[in-house]
Amino acid sequence: MKDKKQVESITDMDEDFAQWYTDVCMKAELIGYTSVKGMFILRPYGYAIWENIQAALDKKFKETGHVNVSMPMLIPESLLQKEKDHIEGFAPECAWVTVGGSEKLDERLCVRPTSETLFCEHWSQVVHSWRDLPMLYNQWCSVLRWEKTTRPFLRHREFLWQEGHTLHASAEEAIAETEQMLEIYADICENLLAMPVLKGLKTDKEKFAGAERTYTIECMMHDRKALQNGTSHYFGDGFAKAFNINFSDKNNQRKTPFETSWGITTRTIGGVIMTHGDNKGLVLPPRVAPIQVIIIPVAQHKPGVLDAAQDLEKRLKNNQIRVKIDDSDNSPGWKFAEYEMKGVPLRVEIGPKDIEKNQCVAVRRDNGEKIFISLENLEAEILKLLDAIHDNLYAMALKNREDHTFEIQSPEEAKEITEREGGFLKSKWCGSQECEQAMKDRAGVSSRCIPFPDAQSGTEGVCPVCGKKCVTDIYWGVAY
Amino acid sequence: MKDKKQVESITDMDEDFAQWYTDVCMKAELIGYTSVKGMFILRPYGYAIWENIQAALDKKFKETGHVNVSMPMLIPESLLQKEKDHIEGFAPECAWVTVGGSEKLDERLCVRPTSETLFCEHWSQVVHSWRDLPMLYNQWCSVLRWEKTTRPFLRHREFLWQEGHTLHASAEEAIAETEQMLEIYADICENLLAMPVLKGLKTDKEKFAGAERTYTIECMMHDRKALQNGTSHYFGDGFAKAFNINFSDKNNQRKTPFETSWGITTRTIGGVIMTHGDNKGLVLPPRVAPIQVIIIPVAQHKPGVLDAAQDLEKRLKNNQIRVKIDDSDNSPGWKFAEYEMKGVPLRVEIGPKDIEKNQCVAVRRDNGEKIFISLENLEAEILKLLDAIHDNLYAMALKNREDHTFEIQSPEEAKEITEREGGFLKSKWCGSQECEQAMKDRAGVSSRCIPFPDAQSGTEGVCPVCGKKCVTDIYWGVAY
Repeated sequence: MKDKKQVESITDMDEDFAQWYTDVCMKAELIGYTSVKGMFILRPYGYAIWENIQAALDKKFKETGHVNVSMPMLIPESLLQKEKDHIEGFAPECAWVTVGGSEKLDERLCVRPTSETLFCEHWSQVVHSWRDLPMLYNQWCSVLRWEKTTRPFLRHREFLWQEGHTLHASAEEAIAETEQMLEIYADICENLLAMPVLKGLKTDKEKFAGAERTYTIECMMHDRKALQNGTSHYFGDGFAKAFNINFSDKNNQRKTPFETSWGITTRTIGGVIMTHGDNKGLVLPPRVAPIQVIIIPVAQHKPGVLDAAQDLEKRLKNNQIRVKIDDSDNSPGWKFAEYEMKGVPLRVEIGPKDIEKNQCVAVRRDNGEKIFISLENLEAEILKLLDAIHDNLYAMALKNREDHTFEIQSPEEAKEITEREGGFLKSKWCGSQECEQAMKDRAGVSSRCIPFPDAQSGTEGVCPVCGKKCVTDIYWGVAY
Repeated sequence: MKDKKQVESITDMDEDFAQWYTDVCMKAELIGYTSVKGMFILRPYGYAIWENIQAALDKKFKETGHVNVSMPMLIPESLLQKEKDHIEGFAPECAWVTVGGSEKLDERLCVRPTSETLFCEHWSQVVHSWRDLPMLYNQWCSVLRWEKTTRPFLRHREFLWQEGHTLHASAEEAIAETEQMLEIYADICENLLAMPVLKGLKTDKEKFAGAERTYTIECMMHDRKALQNGTSHYFGDGFAKAFNINFSDKNNQRKTPFETSWGITTRTIGGVIMTHGDNKGLVLPPRVAPIQVIIIPVAQHKPGVLDAAQDLEKRLKNNQIRVKIDDSDNSPGWKFAEYEMKGVPLRVEIGPKDIEKNQCVAVRRDNGEKIFISLENLEAEILKLLDAIHDNLYAMALKNREDHTFEIQSPEEAKEITEREGGFLKSKWCGSQECEQAMKDRAGVSSRCIPFPDAQSGTEGVCPVCGKKCVTDIYWGVAY
């Protein structure tokens, strides 16, 4: 009864995807609400997922020569205003500190929505020569954006992220950095989170406030909406000029450097939930799962069972597998439902009969498959299964995207498909903002990305709005 | 000339310790100033020290069953006011967000100075039964305290820290937790940072706002002032009652749980600087140093030198030693001064003559000693030297404390010694706040800590102020 009740208490994802999503965030104990609207608690299980993403990213950042720093959380209003496009983009979302101690402040201070201005101010003080470049900085922190509509992971007023900021002697080097970081994000999405990505460029309309170019990775969720899942910006020398950053090059000439920034946030966890989850709850890709294997002793009061379970735990731990044993007095049925809800990739059961046969039983979270494993091959078999689960989750997500990517010839066709099927729409685009806006107005879709040159077909076609001949491929969709 | 200039530009620590300290923070590139008073940048080298402290602490927290979470950075004023002593303690230091987006907020939000109230609000929602206890939570974040006087690391308006918050079924368990976490802090100070600590209890006057007991570790700096370097608080059930947290015990009775919190901050880095630094700059204990060994190739243009240096680097890296090679075109003299300023524990030089002799030269940062090392024993010798440096730094700091701890019989004697020598003063104490205040007024010292029972002499003496017979030992000092 107890476990049945728990499963039934999640909304069916095909009936109400939004409610299903909220239910999973709550029932899997990822998120807690607070008395401030749009500010969420990342509970231990949710935060542990973020820690695993952090660890994987931080390692890659350091391998590519980046160093971590800590900038203040408050930005004076005058500093934020130094780059015109930037403040225009962020002003509506800023939260302001106006009182410190018992005194009204002379100048109000913005709780950082992003930290370009702080990095620029610092660099204007410490960068002097070509020897100081490149500056390859990153920080892990939280930022505030005073959004009107909020949802767990997808849109918080405060969210955790990393923001990389780099400064380079040449535009080419800065662009290469921007692209390199996007590749790192894509790699993390695909190989850690089992989420296939579309990589490409944002249109001018959709790019970051103050950027010359914004690169993005776009993922398709189970409900066929798009999630922008990490962005990397090339600023040219706009910020550097606004903040008077310059350096003397090898010929002792004063030069203006070129800048990038790039970020990925806890919204990625929302993406994981909406990509892989099902009606039993969360489904976590093994490489990011805080618990990869849950061991459930069956008939645990019988002699030898707990010992055998603990032996399994020890062997898997020794192989760097994140394993937990649940020997609480809850029923096996309750435990099954609990760890399914929490998306643990693999459940391993062991009872008296298994011990007799020198085996255990593994049950895959992704497809429910039951596998008998001889204890002699335990470690190798479990590792193989974890990889198989990752691969299957990736393949299912990719199939969902491929099955729901449609070539369209007109805004009307785009509208009809979007309303019926959802998904990504692919077309040519003439490059005009009017046609982009027309897609929004007439089909209800926004541009997601312009694929990189190597993923462009190169063939000529026509813009679905104005009918002009053009070659550029573009993706459209309804986004979170 | 160049390297000489760099060394000369630090103030002599015996002439002006405060200026020496600021010079080291700047010249070793630990800290950057910003346009907001009291809000500092932790530059890459400073942040890397914090990352090493974090990693060591986080490992210990997890080994003792704690999990990380993320709470919001903003606290509604009404929530902060729920525990009377707590808000009284923190109100004068709060910074307030009053505007979000373009709208004035209905209720102003405090940027967290500490997060007891947020943890309590959450627990009041999620704790129901004895099965939910203990809650062993921690978060890594920054907090704001609107201090009037600020100094790098020692007193920031925003500082990085961890704050542990735990909830227990019994007072005994909560007290044991409070003491356990203090022991972890003491262990990190002594074994990672080579800083000897005095452990003990704060007086009621000095304890944390809302706490029943505050435990502390106190370190003596090179200038013989005290630094409070980590605190652990036992709250009893005060917060739990104020926030209406309760649980049903095994007999199905409603009970109020007991709470703790404990924190250590980036001020610890200030402590490291002021404990070990010298007139050449920073001196870092090897286990926390971002660079443990700096390799300087000598006559690096000569054939074979760079290869030999890189070979050293590779061998040390393979032994998990944090090593860097500086093959820039700066002079060896400049490099020597640079890495001495940055406090790198060990410098390894290798040049053509060394290669001939199959050796390298190691120079210790702590005492300048020069050691010839046969390349055959490289790894073992370097590891041995790093341990020796740690031990020597610890021993020197301990000697400084022992040489400057004085038993005193009266406030006047305390004043005289403090003005002449500085250091810790030890006496009996009757336990009255009047006598404690008299020590402040008449000797200029504050109580630092009451040693734990196992470090109490147990002998009877008299309170230096009122002359009453008493047995409690206490330490006094001038604190940062």
